[in-house]
Amino acid sequence: MKKCEQIYEGKAKKVFATDDPNLCIVDYKDDATAFNGQKKGTIVGKGVVNNRMSNFMFQLLEKHGVKTHFVEELSDRETLVKKVSIVPLEVIIRNLSAGSFAKRYGVEEGIEFAQPTIEFSYKNDDLGDPLINDYHALALGLATQEEIDTIKAMAFKVNEVMKEYFKKLDVILVDFKLEFGKTADGEIVLADEISPDTCRFWDVHTHEKLDKDRFRRDLGGVEEAYAEMMKRIGL
Amino acid sequence: MKKCEQIYEGKAKKVFATDDPNLCIVDYKDDATAFNGQKKGTIVGKGVVNNRMSNFMFQLLEKHGVKTHFVEELSDRETLVKKVSIVPLEVIIRNLSAGSFAKRYGVEEGIEFAQPTIEFSYKNDDLGDPLINDYHALALGLATQEEIDTIKAMAFKVNEVMKEYFKKLDVILVDFKLEFGKTADGEIVLADEISPDTCRFWDVHTHEKLDKDRFRRDLGGVEEAYAEMMKRIGL
Repeated sequence: MKKCEQIYEGKAKKVFATDDPNLCIVDYKDDATAFNGQKKGTIVGKGVVNNRMSNFMFQLLEKHGVKTHFVEELSDRETLVKKVSIVPLEVIIRNLSAGSFAKRYGVEEGIEFAQPTIEFSYKNDDLGDPLINDYHALALGLATQEEIDTIKAMAFKVNEVMKEYFKKLDVILVDFKLEFGKTADGEIVLADEISPDTCRFWDVHTHEKLDKDRFRRDLGGVEEAYAEMMKRIGL
Repeated sequence: MKKCEQIYEGKAKKVFATDDPNLCIVDYKDDATAFNGQKKGTIVGKGVVNNRMSNFMFQLLEKHGVKTHFVEELSDRETLVKKVSIVPLEVIIRNLSAGSFAKRYGVEEGIEFAQPTIEFSYKNDDLGDPLINDYHALALGLATQEEIDTIKAMAFKVNEVMKEYFKKLDVILVDFKLEFGKTADGEIVLADEISPDTCRFWDVHTHEKLDKDRFRRDLGGVEEAYAEMMKRIGL
């Protein structure tokens, strides 16, 4: 597989074309941003953690019937994935209150919900990724009703599998963000990454944060938290 | 019916107890606010317009099977209504893009949607009435799933009836905000008001604004717009 020209650079990843039009190579960076890019920094080794953890999670999810963009890990930072067009809806599942939810609705962090919640953000940096609902997404032509239904069902399934998995590692899966893509033949697959950048992980005993909130909130021990998650997963 | 002590004062209305514990008197003020109370002013005669137009619309909706809090118009500014506890969800129906929708999602005003959209805001001034979805409302205990389903069905029915009615008056019903209440026996009824304060009305030919946007955006002719709507309705 030949790594060809760069076709996209995001905040945390670069994407390269390959000699197969249906495949891309994702290259994970150590760059860290928060608050829609207002805060910038570096988390040493993050690219390796996020690449390897994402690939582990994607393979776990595939075993449970969730289609993903994952094809093959090429190196510590590089992975071969299916080429997709990203659905411009960030999907957030929450098991406990935290982050923007707690702030937006004026509640404490750590309230456990009777049922997980799902929400969409319109993936648009200029607009600050605003919260959006099904009706709005349809009105703006961001997805079809069928795609929205598929994405919701897949996201809840991802939550079931991941919640159960992390529980065994003494980790509470507080909330997480997913992105979905459409392959050349129109199939919706889970894309982007699953990592401490995109999930909130709390130690079940101490509620110590093991995710990017350590960077966002200047809590220190950022690299150590990412390393601890890798250790618990056994990577 | 005896008007007793004031039990609530909002931005545009006062509510008084009566000697019947299941009934209240609403008293409409001329006070106008916008942008969550940051802009303040007076629209002379607004209280009369909003009281009389709301009562006209509530009676029209009752004829179409929509239960409301309306009981009897007592004077130009006062109306007897059923006492309800307000469900803390503001319900917004949109037929065309405008206002916060256009701003939030970076689109022009006046785009007609294939289907009307519905959204909820968490009615909380301190938090700026943030957008909220069904899952969040359930997680926060703001309403039950059954109540949410009832409210959505009622809101879409209100839209059907009002859109058709205003069309005959050469008025486009762009969007509007509703509030619902629960009576002592647990029934969900339409409450609050239906007026140029809570609806966007555009003349079908000129797209001239005939609603509170004239006040919000300093367009002038505020009182004249409210009067024009009264004239078209025939009040």
